[in-house]
Amino acid sequence: MHAFIVPIRSLEDHSPLPGITVGDIGPKMDFDHSDNGFLQLDHVRVPRENMLSRFAQVLPDGTYIKLGTARSNYLSMVVVRVDVLSVELIPLLQKACVIAIRYSVIRHQSRLRPSDPEAKVLDYQTQQQKLFPPLAKAYAFHFVAKSLLEFFHRSYSSILDRDFRLLPELHALSAGMKALVSDFCIQGAELCCRACGGHGYSKLSGLPSLVTRVTASCTYEGENTVLYLQTARFLVKSYLKAQESTSQRSLPQSVAYLTAPDLAKCPAQKVADFLHPELYTMAWAHVAARLIKDSVHHLQTLMQSGADRYEAWNQTTVIHLQAAKAHLYYVTVKIFTEALEKLENQPAIQQVLKRLCDLYALHGIMTNTGDFLHDGFLSGAQIDVARKAYLDLLLLIRKDAILLTDAFDFTDQCLNSALGCYDGNVYERLFQWAQKSPTNTQGNPAYEKYIRPLLQGWRSRL
Amino acid sequence: MHAFIVPIRSLEDHSPLPGITVGDIGPKMDFDHSDNGFLQLDHVRVPRENMLSRFAQVLPDGTYIKLGTARSNYLSMVVVRVDVLSVELIPLLQKACVIAIRYSVIRHQSRLRPSDPEAKVLDYQTQQQKLFPPLAKAYAFHFVAKSLLEFFHRSYSSILDRDFRLLPELHALSAGMKALVSDFCIQGAELCCRACGGHGYSKLSGLPSLVTRVTASCTYEGENTVLYLQTARFLVKSYLKAQESTSQRSLPQSVAYLTAPDLAKCPAQKVADFLHPELYTMAWAHVAARLIKDSVHHLQTLMQSGADRYEAWNQTTVIHLQAAKAHLYYVTVKIFTEALEKLENQPAIQQVLKRLCDLYALHGIMTNTGDFLHDGFLSGAQIDVARKAYLDLLLLIRKDAILLTDAFDFTDQCLNSALGCYDGNVYERLFQWAQKSPTNTQGNPAYEKYIRPLLQGWRSRL
Repeated sequence: MHAFIVPIRSLEDHSPLPGITVGDIGPKMDFDHSDNGFLQLDHVRVPRENMLSRFAQVLPDGTYIKLGTARSNYLSMVVVRVDVLSVELIPLLQKACVIAIRYSVIRHQSRLRPSDPEAKVLDYQTQQQKLFPPLAKAYAFHFVAKSLLEFFHRSYSSILDRDFRLLPELHALSAGMKALVSDFCIQGAELCCRACGGHGYSKLSGLPSLVTRVTASCTYEGENTVLYLQTARFLVKSYLKAQESTSQRSLPQSVAYLTAPDLAKCPAQKVADFLHPELYTMAWAHVAARLIKDSVHHLQTLMQSGADRYEAWNQTTVIHLQAAKAHLYYVTVKIFTEALEKLENQPAIQQVLKRLCDLYALHGIMTNTGDFLHDGFLSGAQIDVARKAYLDLLLLIRKDAILLTDAFDFTDQCLNSALGCYDGNVYERLFQWAQKSPTNTQGNPAYEKYIRPLLQGWRSRL
Repeated sequence: MHAFIVPIRSLEDHSPLPGITVGDIGPKMDFDHSDNGFLQLDHVRVPRENMLSRFAQVLPDGTYIKLGTARSNYLSMVVVRVDVLSVELIPLLQKACVIAIRYSVIRHQSRLRPSDPEAKVLDYQTQQQKLFPPLAKAYAFHFVAKSLLEFFHRSYSSILDRDFRLLPELHALSAGMKALVSDFCIQGAELCCRACGGHGYSKLSGLPSLVTRVTASCTYEGENTVLYLQTARFLVKSYLKAQESTSQRSLPQSVAYLTAPDLAKCPAQKVADFLHPELYTMAWAHVAARLIKDSVHHLQTLMQSGADRYEAWNQTTVIHLQAAKAHLYYVTVKIFTEALEKLENQPAIQQVLKRLCDLYALHGIMTNTGDFLHDGFLSGAQIDVARKAYLDLLLLIRKDAILLTDAFDFTDQCLNSALGCYDGNVYERLFQWAQKSPTNTQGNPAYEKYIRPLLQGWRSRL
């Protein structure tokens, strides 16, 4: 892949240049503001000077000099992914959480007991179960983006010195994280939208536009399945490397756990045991290592039974996906727990964030219990204890929920939501904003043009 | 709840009647064509004759006669839910499957091996894993809707004879099925949209509108969490009834498995064992029964430790949700297998549909492995065998995939999709339809009004 700057339109009248056919690709799901186009080039000559030639060149005599385009392409993909993650995706999830959680302390519905007044919907366990895991993710991903950016800057310094050793890990990590984070951001934003009931579907809530924007990100800058499989290829290589006896020191940091000591059974017994960051980080490492081993094993078995490596790869991709997702979840848990450690001087903040970190790790276990039960690492009884720990956390986080959303510090203007404003005047604002709807404004031309004649037609037939 | 017909607007000029304030609630997520409104009534008198008085009456002297409004309300909710299911939701999922699967045999991308030409994306295991489970659901739900409708008609005849005994089961089943089916239809439609890559987000694909329409259905006619909990309450009652020694015969049909003989361990060993409808139906019954027992046990434990029943209910709703979902999945598997049995005279059709039924049941097991491993009903090794059975099915279904989408018999006009037309001319049609985009039409007034002056402004500054 090479990058060129190609003139498409005349600088005089904006008309397409000779040989160029250009146009709009038509309406898109909530992305009509970006002018994605189609382009056809027929005998268009691009001047040599228009090539971006940092990593490859064409000399005036036509000689092509390759300096490392593959690496440069990987690097530019990494930059774009880290950017999509931190600048676009994570703020969208954070905003959705702020809107849905603020609305859930204003909205009252049904009664917890017949003698009570109507309860805030956030006091229902099912509402907490919908909204607090996305909130925990919104915080987790804040630290993930920060950590990825730091890793990128560290690697980039080496790369400028022509040391590319960190690039494969950087590529695998940024590809997988873009996929994992965007998958969870979509899930989270949709949960937030649904958790607001009918009002979530009003565009005045701001949620429909957050949902569609985050959804599209699953596809652009790398389709998520393809990205997970990039991570999976790196994991297969790392696993095989880890099997070589002398390689222990040279494994990339994010997969160092593949050679770390591992327990066959989780020692946790009580609820409190499941609230130790070392414990659940270790549990995730155990599951990720087992699934990676399993995926390599399946790949090798198929090849030994006669399939070529391409066929074997295609027939095991579903298994590789599972391994990649577990590995990435492990990395996010590890990043979150390391971020907590750095907050030792702010114990109050550390305590609140630790609950979110606990919830993040345990929610991952609760939604993937099969992976932890499969080899007996956790027993059914231990899963029940972990679930108790998880449900107890929902009640604890409830107390700080509003403050945790305020802390993102979005202005009302930036949220642009009738449900999510700081003052909580949801219904007044919904009513005011609805008044501005074209069908509600006096002398509405559409009403005059279409509805009134229709009504007159009906009346004449009565 | 009582139903009245209330005159809102003048029959002369459509203006609101005295005391009535009415307006539009503003823009909604892809539902702008339905005119949802707000309404305020200030001293509006509704004539007695305007009451729908089949199940309750007000006499001229003001006497109120209750004839069974609760039952009548339940019944009208049942009618609406069965209707939403069969008329709205399921066809939306079916259409999404048709579009995505047809596109996936036209779209080529990457190579399975370096020497091959670019492969159809449907030949990738990951694409099959995305699209075939929704296809299996689209067929499963066809039979679910049919079965539910039959049950409704059977119950309704009794109800007209004032025999309400079937109503609780009908209510619980229709509530839960509306929730389960809409949850899966959303998941499926979104998967289909994403599986088409960037083209899925083009409105010309028809998928964005299918996704947003199916998404809203999660909320209207009963929010899904509330609906699942209706089913859960019925399950708690049924479980307690099943514990009474003499009640065996009086349990409603859909929960009869609560008193049926049960195995502690699944006997399946080979791949072929997992393809027996009796085996996987029994496996789902086992898991549903265990989870219902578990939910009742948690409820009782909390009450014994001092919580009142309302508090205990709220603190166990997450557990009840899990039980309700497993029960409903069991019911859908059972309905699908029973539908297969009726196809004995059409063995070719039966064989193809059996693969979808197997896939439906096994996909449910694969996405909930923890529930089957929890008490050792399945071992880790058995899960691996079931996964092998599941992955093998993807390859078998691949052969019939296009015919299975043709069989829904949607016309091109009805699909309204550039990607999903019967003739497969995807790219020609995409290009033709994009030409009609307002920005591509010559003499576009928006271009003349906004873009040209802007360009002229820039040019004058060059």
